[in-house]
Amino acid sequence: MRIDSFRPALVLLLSCAFIIPAASQSKDKPLLGFDPEGAAAERTLEAKFDSLLKRENLRETMKRLSARPHHVGSPYDKENAEFILSLFRSWGFDAQIEEFQVLFPTPKVRVLEMITPEKFTARLAEPTLREDSTSAQTSEQLPVYNAYSIDGDVTAQLVYVNYGVPKDYEELQQRGIDVKGKIVIARYGGSWRGIKPKVAAEHGAVGCLIYSDPRDDGFYQGDVYPQGAWRNESGAQRGSVADMPLYPGDPLTPGVGATKDAQRIALKDAQTLTKIPVLPISYADALPLLKAMNGQVAPDAWRGSLPITYHLGPGSATVHLKLEFDWKTETIRDVIARLKGDERPDELIIRGNHHDAWVNGASDPISGQVAMLEEARGLGELAKSGWKPKRTIIYCAWDGEEPGLLGSTEWAETHAEMLRKHAAIYINSDSNGRGFLGMGGSHTLEKFINEVARDVTDPEKKISVSDRARAVQLLRGDKNEQREARERADLRIDALGSGSDFTPFLQHLGIASLNLGFGGEDGGGSYHSIYDSFDNYTRFIDPNFDYGIALAEVGGRTVLRFANADVLPFEFGNLTDTVGQYVKEVTQLTNDAREEIKEKNLRLSDGTYAAVFDPTQPFVMPKAEQPAPYLNFAPLENSLARLQESTRKYQTTMMQLAAQNRLPAQSGALDEALIKVERAMTREQGLPRRPWFKHQIYAPGFYTGYGVKTLPGVREAIEQRNWQEANEQIGIVGQTIENVAVEIDRATTLLQATR
Amino acid sequence: MRIDSFRPALVLLLSCAFIIPAASQSKDKPLLGFDPEGAAAERTLEAKFDSLLKRENLRETMKRLSARPHHVGSPYDKENAEFILSLFRSWGFDAQIEEFQVLFPTPKVRVLEMITPEKFTARLAEPTLREDSTSAQTSEQLPVYNAYSIDGDVTAQLVYVNYGVPKDYEELQQRGIDVKGKIVIARYGGSWRGIKPKVAAEHGAVGCLIYSDPRDDGFYQGDVYPQGAWRNESGAQRGSVADMPLYPGDPLTPGVGATKDAQRIALKDAQTLTKIPVLPISYADALPLLKAMNGQVAPDAWRGSLPITYHLGPGSATVHLKLEFDWKTETIRDVIARLKGDERPDELIIRGNHHDAWVNGASDPISGQVAMLEEARGLGELAKSGWKPKRTIIYCAWDGEEPGLLGSTEWAETHAEMLRKHAAIYINSDSNGRGFLGMGGSHTLEKFINEVARDVTDPEKKISVSDRARAVQLLRGDKNEQREARERADLRIDALGSGSDFTPFLQHLGIASLNLGFGGEDGGGSYHSIYDSFDNYTRFIDPNFDYGIALAEVGGRTVLRFANADVLPFEFGNLTDTVGQYVKEVTQLTNDAREEIKEKNLRLSDGTYAAVFDPTQPFVMPKAEQPAPYLNFAPLENSLARLQESTRKYQTTMMQLAAQNRLPAQSGALDEALIKVERAMTREQGLPRRPWFKHQIYAPGFYTGYGVKTLPGVREAIEQRNWQEANEQIGIVGQTIENVAVEIDRATTLLQATR
Repeated sequence: MRIDSFRPALVLLLSCAFIIPAASQSKDKPLLGFDPEGAAAERTLEAKFDSLLKRENLRETMKRLSARPHHVGSPYDKENAEFILSLFRSWGFDAQIEEFQVLFPTPKVRVLEMITPEKFTARLAEPTLREDSTSAQTSEQLPVYNAYSIDGDVTAQLVYVNYGVPKDYEELQQRGIDVKGKIVIARYGGSWRGIKPKVAAEHGAVGCLIYSDPRDDGFYQGDVYPQGAWRNESGAQRGSVADMPLYPGDPLTPGVGATKDAQRIALKDAQTLTKIPVLPISYADALPLLKAMNGQVAPDAWRGSLPITYHLGPGSATVHLKLEFDWKTETIRDVIARLKGDERPDELIIRGNHHDAWVNGASDPISGQVAMLEEARGLGELAKSGWKPKRTIIYCAWDGEEPGLLGSTEWAETHAEMLRKHAAIYINSDSNGRGFLGMGGSHTLEKFINEVARDVTDPEKKISVSDRARAVQLLRGDKNEQREARERADLRIDALGSGSDFTPFLQHLGIASLNLGFGGEDGGGSYHSIYDSFDNYTRFIDPNFDYGIALAEVGGRTVLRFANADVLPFEFGNLTDTVGQYVKEVTQLTNDAREEIKEKNLRLSDGTYAAVFDPTQPFVMPKAEQPAPYLNFAPLENSLARLQESTRKYQTTMMQLAAQNRLPAQSGALDEALIKVERAMTREQGLPRRPWFKHQIYAPGFYTGYGVKTLPGVREAIEQRNWQEANEQIGIVGQTIENVAVEIDRATTLLQATR
Repeated sequence: MRIDSFRPALVLLLSCAFIIPAASQSKDKPLLGFDPEGAAAERTLEAKFDSLLKRENLRETMKRLSARPHHVGSPYDKENAEFILSLFRSWGFDAQIEEFQVLFPTPKVRVLEMITPEKFTARLAEPTLREDSTSAQTSEQLPVYNAYSIDGDVTAQLVYVNYGVPKDYEELQQRGIDVKGKIVIARYGGSWRGIKPKVAAEHGAVGCLIYSDPRDDGFYQGDVYPQGAWRNESGAQRGSVADMPLYPGDPLTPGVGATKDAQRIALKDAQTLTKIPVLPISYADALPLLKAMNGQVAPDAWRGSLPITYHLGPGSATVHLKLEFDWKTETIRDVIARLKGDERPDELIIRGNHHDAWVNGASDPISGQVAMLEEARGLGELAKSGWKPKRTIIYCAWDGEEPGLLGSTEWAETHAEMLRKHAAIYINSDSNGRGFLGMGGSHTLEKFINEVARDVTDPEKKISVSDRARAVQLLRGDKNEQREARERADLRIDALGSGSDFTPFLQHLGIASLNLGFGGEDGGGSYHSIYDSFDNYTRFIDPNFDYGIALAEVGGRTVLRFANADVLPFEFGNLTDTVGQYVKEVTQLTNDAREEIKEKNLRLSDGTYAAVFDPTQPFVMPKAEQPAPYLNFAPLENSLARLQESTRKYQTTMMQLAAQNRLPAQSGALDEALIKVERAMTREQGLPRRPWFKHQIYAPGFYTGYGVKTLPGVREAIEQRNWQEANEQIGIVGQTIENVAVEIDRATTLLQATR
């Protein structure tokens, strides 16, 4: 077996044309986890797999799955699950539906009206469009609302809070504006939506409106639907506002599967419901409110594209918000389809994409779902023609992703013990569109997924999707990204926060995960609206399903290689490089905080703020802050050195084996050891104040929601300027990294035993 | 005599409170150009001067001067000149009106109509507002137009060109859009307005519309007039579009005074008229046009705040633009008032501010004019009570600034020989408002004007206006500016481009100049509209004339110190430091251009552009470019070294004199030598292709209009990638800097002769 050599600082020698046709690249090139012979066989198999994929299937299946609204609890959600089940079975998979019982509130009462300075009642509806056939299915559509908002009936003055993230409240505070007892109006964007009511409530607001400003996904960006793809004045964004950075899944069954008989907490004890009522609205509904507001003019960066002067309030505009929900329990249906492994059936390769939507969801999630299904059909065909995977493959069509990763989380929690023991990888996709390959995931998989991307051809450019991703990074990246695009052998993959079904696998169970999809040439504003339809998708997003096929090729290769490899294709050089970067970042973050505090205190004491502020405008002097201490980063730095040494040993041993063209003996035991490396990145106690999140390298940010925080225990403590906790967490994360090194050493020992 | 010591890299030792009350700072501190005794006497005089200033005078005079429209050729413009003349005479000045005959076209026909896709006729008018008493003077108001647009009658498709600067056309070219034969619509901002039709014509456009986007000075910025200070939907911006970067002043008399008998070129030969018809419009008039456009969506940075998707065209929208002007000659009237010097009457201290406006012009220019008049009245009072200036003071109230610096340019050209010989300084102001002191000018005056700013108290904060300017630089400057605000002894003053009456003095005649004014807390959008009124100014800009008084204090001190000093208070350390920075900048500019070309060529050859562009969008591949050569910067570097040495010698000699508490003998001869230093920065042949502009260190940019280009010959050649010219200009500018060093050496020799 050969394995990619250790090149920590490899500089790509760029010829005049580094972008060459993908096909010519892949011949005879080694594959991580395969010997040369195995690699050639694998590539032959993949070529056959590619030839089986048919874009017409994607179109037909999307048309079928998005034909009617199919949110959690809807008849068509169930029909879809059963339809997907029938597909998997017809392709030879051992498939079942697994059901869970989850809390899923839907609106009974939604009232939003302006009381002063004039009367206005929000419409809270997305109108039917002649040009969009499914937009007329009003009787089946979920109304516009935010799931897991609490009930409420509040009347108060409005305050505009921009994106509603913590630093926006700092800005308000400096201007002498308090949201206590007020209803905040925030625009979508800048963070995951659930952060907005959470931070608003922390500051004492009694209600929260979230509107879609045309600056962010409406006419400012491009022509609006149906003329173009962007959100029109009535388009609104549904979505969950459960406090998922605390824990995702059913609010009533934290940490355990929401099976029929599961122990449930009382609704009043559910920590992830919002603390204040929250409602999403269109900009047609927001405009009269924002226009009626007075008070200070909003800071430059806060202003959207509505034809008004954005004011902060509070003052003239008072609104009444009344929300009541039906707090019912619904059944969700995950479709789980197995293709049993031949040699190592206990090792699991898990691939998933959700099937539930907020309304018709042609893009979200059906575009990813149909690519995954076509991929599964291809594997089924291969199996019928005699191919047998070494390891067991599990395809999962998740239900209930939209309200809060319900289907994946409850399944992962239900099968946690089994998964912790056997799962080698989880591969996720979600919405897909035209453009560039996005790769996120565990850095133990970075080299592997780069190999995959080098072997898949971009349908528009006939170069590899890797080369295209590298080119766009070179053209549009920041200085550092441009440098890496030129110099680094592998494209750096994104660390994963949250926002799709990988979260329970990666961050709760410590299973190495990937999240894959194309995009960047498919902008639009139909997200979570009734206009995310087949008509819309096939006009504006990926009309020929070219990138649906490309996703199937990427996903299929990922599954096939993981299923077929002699040794699981993990690699630790890129992990070590990346963790090293994170350690640098948190050190720099502390230095930056120290400088910032010092500068602020200096400006206070030398009178700079006092000298500058406009006496005709409200201004609250900042408060002096304790200087930031120097933290003891030694535990992190020592553990990183240890990790580097362990990685070096593993790779040297691998290279020696490869040079002798020998395969490691005891590959099964080696696989088991390799699987444990990612598991070692978790800690049973989890992160501070959120034990469900056990991964110590990646987590969704407590105040970003989807956005990742790497080395989260350390980074968030520094961001919150909780220096004591930062010091503690440095120790904990250092220990975690040591544990990872120990697991890599175990793998090395197994390798050495074969010599 | 003491003089400020030589501190090239002085680090201000910042105490906990570097901002201390201005009054306590000034006591017994030395003054450039005075011995200790003289400095104390000067400060006593200035305190008396301050006590004479009355804000009620500013209010009354503004009310009087802005009571009716007073553009060039209007009855009230003449009345104002005569009124100002009577004021100067009543204060004891020897005052006259000097008249010039200038080309001043006004509109006969203005038609703008959309032909397709629907009919729309632009209103081209600013409505009367009940809240603004002078807005009703419709019979006297100049209509909305751009002076020195040619006549034209064109019908063509519209293309949106953003700000209409050269790089905007590069962007269009990359998108395959050609403006040839089209009418461009540009928004105000991003450059001086005259650049827009100039660059449009260079690219083959047949007409040009310029509109005020609410993003730049309308509702996006704040509440609109009359509710707030910002431009309302009907507000439009008049203004000159003569090609002033070629030469300002009367288009028919380049380089000579437009006296009655002056030789005039034919209208058809006037190089500064536009090549295509151009008309400014409000956003109420622009909105239907922009809304009707189709074609590609404008790039993100091009989009304004109108509630539309900005499209580039060309396509659906076709407009008809017809303009005819009355190409008449008008009389302009400069008011020139002298206070004769007692000791050195031949040395002239010139102070100016224009009096003509586009309409009522309360802010532009009357806010500056009334401060200057009050300053002159104060000097008149001092003179009546016995004070005599050493040098002659000339106050100038310019006419015809708005159409093209007519009054100042024609006067400067008429008296060029006398001025070149005798003028020590020109001090300019224009609009003035609430906020921070802005200081622009010759760097030979940087240390001097910093001293002045340290001695004037900010009316809102009771600290010096210098400390306040330093504080705002510290809080809002970029990293480099912040560092300088902390570390540099003097605030760095801005180099001057154009946009007001300093241009003929500084850039044509080489007279050290200053441009002074307050602003930054007085935002608004009344510029060049009928709403620039007394009502507007006293509500939104500087209601109590606090900053009018502050400007009179700054301007008065500047005049008094220059008039009274033993030796003219020039200083060359800051000049040398600044020129050194410019040399670094042009070197870096070349390196940046080299890197940019290299990177572009690499991206072309390695297929990066090809890999990235969206095949569904138009994209024109960039063209490979010749690599940038290395330029020979040695002549600049050698001349800089020479300048540094000359400066060092001058300062050492000055310090030795100061240490002995001796005054230089032959101060008159020394003054003469010092005056010649700035003169040595000019070159008779002027800049390439624009011989009128003779200053080799500062010029308005050929493609920026107001924005300065320092070392313009070198910098603009590099920007245009004209490498041969760049090498030539390095030699020329190097020689110029040597000449400056020679003049400083002459001054040093005179100083040494006294020992």
